Amino acid sequence: MPELPTPDSAGCCGPLDARAADRDTATALARTFKALADPARVQLLSIVAAQDGAEACVCDLTEPLGLAQPTVSHHLKILVDAGLLAREQRGRWAYFSLVPGALSSLAAGLAEQVPTHQG
Amino acid sequence: MPELPTPDSAGCCGPLDARAADRDTATALARTFKALADPARVQLLSIVAAQDGAEACVCDLTEPLGLAQPTVSHHLKILVDAGLLAREQRGRWAYFSLVPGALSSLAAGLAEQVPTHQG
Repeated sequence: MPELPTPDSAGCCGPLDARAADRDTATALARTFKALADPARVQLLSIVAAQDGAEACVCDLTEPLGLAQPTVSHHLKILVDAGLLAREQRGRWAYFSLVPGALSSLAAGLAEQVPTHQG
Repeated sequence: MPELPTPDSAGCCGPLDARAADRDTATALARTFKALADPARVQLLSIVAAQDGAEACVCDLTEPLGLAQPTVSHHLKILVDAGLLAREQRGRWAYFSLVPGALSSLAAGLAEQVPTHQG
């Protein structure tokens, strides 16, 4: 339960100042969405998510996308940097797994970043 | 149309052919994520979502972002085109409301686009 909103938030306009603090969060969220703003990366994430244990070898990811392995590795790196996939090297190959809850927390992040201030 | 997966995909590689059908879905999802790949648009969506009735007048959206109204209108149009916001003209001002379920179906879309094929 939130305490009372700021006393000067009379009616329509709400606590505008509170939103400035959300700018960093918005920037972080936008960066994650940018990682997903590419069909190949959406496909990679989906394919990894659909595997047993939500994990796939990079060697299994090039063929379904019809892309060269350096290109696939480039896309995978962007997904790892965005915190959506985790990478683990095992001998010759790198394995990629879905970071649990990353997608749902991404959706929740949007809803959470602005505190509710309805009367 | 291949009937069977490649015979040498023993174990590890799953039904790769099924994934080709997901390319259009991935493209559509990526387009929506691209609409969210900008901090100003994430903030706009959040501010609208936090209003009473998840609706806001464009006149209330310029100040919290510190952007000119044409710029805000440009970002809002991208969010409307992506199906995340709905626009309604009322007299002089346009009102924008969150499309119910758009964000959650976006997250679900990723999980849904690849059929589960775990054994």
